[in-house]
Amino acid sequence: MQLFYYPYLSESEIILPEDESKHCVRVLRKKVGDEIILIDGKGTEAITEIVDDNPKKCRLNIRHRTLHQAHRTFNLHLTVAPTKNFERIEWMIEKCIEMGIDQISFIETGNSERAKINLDRCEKIAISAIKQSKQYWLPRINEIQKIDTFLKNLAPKSENEIRCMAWCETELTEHLNKHFNTLNHKNITILIGPEGDFTANEIHLAKSKDFIPVSLGKNILRTETAAIYATAVINALS
Amino acid sequence: MQLFYYPYLSESEIILPEDESKHCVRVLRKKVGDEIILIDGKGTEAITEIVDDNPKKCRLNIRHRTLHQAHRTFNLHLTVAPTKNFERIEWMIEKCIEMGIDQISFIETGNSERAKINLDRCEKIAISAIKQSKQYWLPRINEIQKIDTFLKNLAPKSENEIRCMAWCETELTEHLNKHFNTLNHKNITILIGPEGDFTANEIHLAKSKDFIPVSLGKNILRTETAAIYATAVINALS
Repeated sequence: MQLFYYPYLSESEIILPEDESKHCVRVLRKKVGDEIILIDGKGTEAITEIVDDNPKKCRLNIRHRTLHQAHRTFNLHLTVAPTKNFERIEWMIEKCIEMGIDQISFIETGNSERAKINLDRCEKIAISAIKQSKQYWLPRINEIQKIDTFLKNLAPKSENEIRCMAWCETELTEHLNKHFNTLNHKNITILIGPEGDFTANEIHLAKSKDFIPVSLGKNILRTETAAIYATAVINALS
Repeated sequence: MQLFYYPYLSESEIILPEDESKHCVRVLRKKVGDEIILIDGKGTEAITEIVDDNPKKCRLNIRHRTLHQAHRTFNLHLTVAPTKNFERIEWMIEKCIEMGIDQISFIETGNSERAKINLDRCEKIAISAIKQSKQYWLPRINEIQKIDTFLKNLAPKSENEIRCMAWCETELTEHLNKHFNTLNHKNITILIGPEGDFTANEIHLAKSKDFIPVSLGKNILRTETAAIYATAVINALS
């Protein structure tokens, strides 16, 4: 059954926005008395009933709420330099969210090919992906910032936290999954560089913030593939 | 450095096809004496030198050949029901090949939304993906066939082989990575169903051919996401 996203589920009566009302009444042909399931992206699932099937402002009454716990026992934060072709990043957001992620931050690096992202577009993809994959928690997507700012503002690493960075020098580094287990590490940050790699300064700064260089295998992965691969592997460890 | 694909590297002199000649001479502005690296998709890398920079038939002399072993110690075969939107499958091919795969077969199932694929287009994506990720082996991509035919023609399972099938009944099945290790299993086949899932008959037939039901985690993954996730996780086990 299709889920609808509505971020304010504490009210007892809900009026869907115009586009969602249209989708519900005109496209899905839902009528008064039909059941609609809403999620708020903060763990709540609400079973509702249509009380007015107005295609511009469909009105619903909440019958029942359930608060879902997160699937994962850890918090996964992906930090990535967006590619020039933004379609690749859109796919990455969709795939990483389907597989399971809590937060995505975009960074501008010395070799970055993109310094701006469309955050509204990213959030639409995120909402669509959690609806599609039946998840109740909407990942946070952060505005792009310079890698120096991002790293300098990071709090000191806590005991149950691990920070990994993937870059192309794979000879000397061990594979991602050799470095941690999700029983000990409740907070995981993975940093993925641009196609042109991190600069020496960026690597130095990341290391000073306790990022461990990790390998993602022997093949050279595109930025978005590296992000998807890391997200898959970390989710499979849990 | 950019790689060129040329499937016949046993000859000592090579003439690139017209589109590759144009790309080499006009786009990359390569001249007589410049070095060009070719791969044949069968493990061979050849260092060549341009002897005639004709933009329609660029002629190369082979200086040196290297035969590369495959990265992985196992053989991974993905069998998947293609989605209605073929762009999703194109991405899947690219991502699975970047991460590492040996063979992709397409199957038509009872709930399939697509019974045809463009094999030429798939092969172009495959060649581009191995060039991009610096791999020397071109995965085989097989024409679509009915799942019954595919399963009935499978040889009996050998001792070092494992066959897994991913479908939506996740409650009762264990996660993919609980089922095997790549030290024992040299041949891995993973079967991924369509959005509408396998039919009861298909599941029965697959089980009779020693396919073990596996889970890909708690989230509901799209077909192409399931394929990418499984490929990532299996590669990380190696």
